[in-house]
Order: sequence, then structure tokens, then C-alpha cells
Amino acid sequence: MTSPTSLDRLDAQIRFILEIDKLKAVLRQSWLLDGERRENSAEHSWHVAMMALVLAEHANAPVDATRAAMMLMLHDVVEIDAGDTFAYDVAAHADKAEREGAAADRIFGLLPADTAAPLRALWDEFEAAETIDARFANALDRLMPMLHNLHTEGRAWQANGVTADKVFARNQVIAAGSVRLWEYAKTVIDAAVAKGYLPQAPSSLGD
Amino acid sequence: MTSPTSLDRLDAQIRFILEIDKLKAVLRQSWLLDGERRENSAEHSWHVAMMALVLAEHANAPVDATRAAMMLMLHDVVEIDAGDTFAYDVAAHADKAEREGAAADRIFGLLPADTAAPLRALWDEFEAAETIDARFANALDRLMPMLHNLHTEGRAWQANGVTADKVFARNQVIAAGSVRLWEYAKTVIDAAVAKGYLPQAPSSLGD
Repeated sequence: MTSPTSLDRLDAQIRFILEIDKLKAVLRQSWLLDGERRENSAEHSWHVAMMALVLAEHANAPVDATRAAMMLMLHDVVEIDAGDTFAYDVAAHADKAEREGAAADRIFGLLPADTAAPLRALWDEFEAAETIDARFANALDRLMPMLHNLHTEGRAWQANGVTADKVFARNQVIAAGSVRLWEYAKTVIDAAVAKGYLPQAPSSLGD
Repeated sequence: MTSPTSLDRLDAQIRFILEIDKLKAVLRQSWLLDGERRENSAEHSWHVAMMALVLAEHANAPVDATRAAMMLMLHDVVEIDAGDTFAYDVAAHADKAEREGAAADRIFGLLPADTAAPLRALWDEFEAAETIDARFANALDRLMPMLHNLHTEGRAWQANGVTADKVFARNQVIAAGSVRLWEYAKTVIDAAVAKGYLPQAPSSLGD
């Protein structure tokens, strides 16, 4: 019924689908809100993509919410090879772009070239964080773990010795996508500090 | 900086985002391809939405792949209240629509009405399975667990006494979204039977 070519294409596409099942085994530092276990990068990708659909109105400029959601579905696929890099791990960030670029080459390379191209373009756009959609998507990817921390008593922050000054510095780029969400994120930091979930900067301990 | 109204809206939207974290704790019958654990409905939603992005060309008629992906991101949110209903659980399917409709009312009802409306409309469209996009999305939701079963030695089928005739009958609706994917799905059934992962129908045992 179908040409050999279309069957070859389908085989390659199914191989990609099977390959990305591995993202469900990549663990993040964030804990689920019920405190039962750490979050994996596949379910995170779903969650933050859903966030794009419901928070689009808060972007600095009109965004295509579904494009932002697609970027967020794709953004962590490279972690299958490169692993999850914790936001506050400075050393691991040194070669993050190189590791993830190689991973993108391999993983999207499983697909027929014309299937891969639009997905790789969305991944590149997210990474570059220059377009309105990509800045908004990146803002959500920063905000989400702050919410998980606030509602799990700062579990990932505390396990990794993260302080409020670092959370502030790392996440102020949220404002590039949404000033309103950065205002909200600052209330999250303040609430976490007030509840004792997030220490102030080490330098402030001697004040 | 922002009006009280927009802050109220953001609060409601964040409550929805926090609520749907619970989908990560809803377990399906399917096992991950690495055999380590059962799949949850949040990571499944991501995986099958990704499938829409790479398999769209195989639909019977031109589909909007991102609309199909959005439907698939949303389709299982109701399981937070209604639980996952196994495809071959006839008794549980009797009141599935009622349980899931009530869940959709509550969960999408957490959002401001105008944020909820387009998402609920996509959820309803998926459930009705009448449009081209929805038929394609439903086809993918049927195909995915067949792939997981084939690559985990029929683990969910065997745990639940599912036979090849039931898999055939349950999934032939895939053809309504994609004749090509139904042809492919039949090769999955044949391979699973040949490998001994999926028994033939009980009635054929006496042949």
C-alpha cells in the first residue's frame, strides 16, 4: 500500500520515538510537589509546555503559545546524552552547549532530514533565546523549578547549598520574557526566604 | 505594576499549574522501555505529543500537527481525578466519560474562564474524535502502548491477560486517523504474537 520510501521514513521516525523514551529516566534536582520522588525531564517537559499554554498572556510581547510549548517539549531531549545540568552547577555549564549540541546532532539525526529540520530549528531557537517566543519559553523553564522549590520546602535548593542571591542572579533573565513573571518570581524568592526554605547569601550571614 | 485583576488571573493559572503536577503520580499499565518502572500519565502525554510532531505526514488527511500535539498534552489531565482507565478494562469504560467529564469541569475550572475555554475545547475535540486532528491524535494514543508492549515483551498485555484478538479489535480505530499507521500497528501485533509476547485469542487455543 505504501512506498518503500515512506516505510523507511516511518521506521526512522519510530526509532526516534523509542529513543526518546530514555528522557523519562533522566532525573532533575526538582522534587515532585507530593515529595515522593525527584522529577524526570520528560514529565518536566510536559509540565512546562502546559505552562506556556496557560501563561502566554503575561509575556512582554504577544507570543505564539503553541510554538513556545513546542520548544519546551523539545528543549530537554538532548539530556538523553548530555544529562541534566543543574541550574547552579557552574562547572557543568562550561561545556553544556558543546555537549548538548552533539546530543542534538545525534538524536534529531535519527529522523529523516526533513522531519528533523523544523524540530531542530525550534530547539536552536530556544537555546539562542533571542526571539520573543524563545525568551518567553526560557522564562517559564526558569520559573518552574522555583515553584517546585517553594512548594517542597526548598528541597533542591537546600540539597545543593543554593542561596537567595544565586536564585535572584540566575533567574532575573525571566524579565526578558516576562516582566510580570519576574515580579512574581521575586515574590516566590521572598516567600521562600521568609519560610526558611532558602538561605540569604553566605556573605550576609555575618551581617 | 500590574492590575489586581491580572494578579488574580496569574494566581489562578499558577494554582492550575501546581495542581497538574499530580498527573506525574498517575500510573499507566505500560512499562518504560528500559523495564525499570511503569509509565506515568504526565510523561506519556509528553511522549505521545512528540509522536504527533514526527508522524503527522502519515495521517489520512493533512493535519495540524501542533494542534494534535496540544490535544495529546491535555488529553489525560482528567486522570488526576478519574485515574487511568486501562484500554482493555471493559467495566471501567462504562462510566469513564462521566468520570472524566466531571474531572475536566473541576480541573479546567481552576483557570480563568477565558484561559480554560480553548484548552477545554481541545480536550472535548479529542474526546469526540470526529475531526481530522482528533482522529489522528487518538490514533497515536492507541499506537503508543502497542510499541511499549512490543519492546517490553508484552508486559502490560501479559499482566492483564490481553490477547491478540482484543488488541486488534481495540486498536483498529487507528485507521480512522491513519490507515498507514494501522497497517504498521498490525505488523506490531504480528511481531508480538510471533515472539510469544501476545497470546492468540483464547478461542483459538483449541484449534
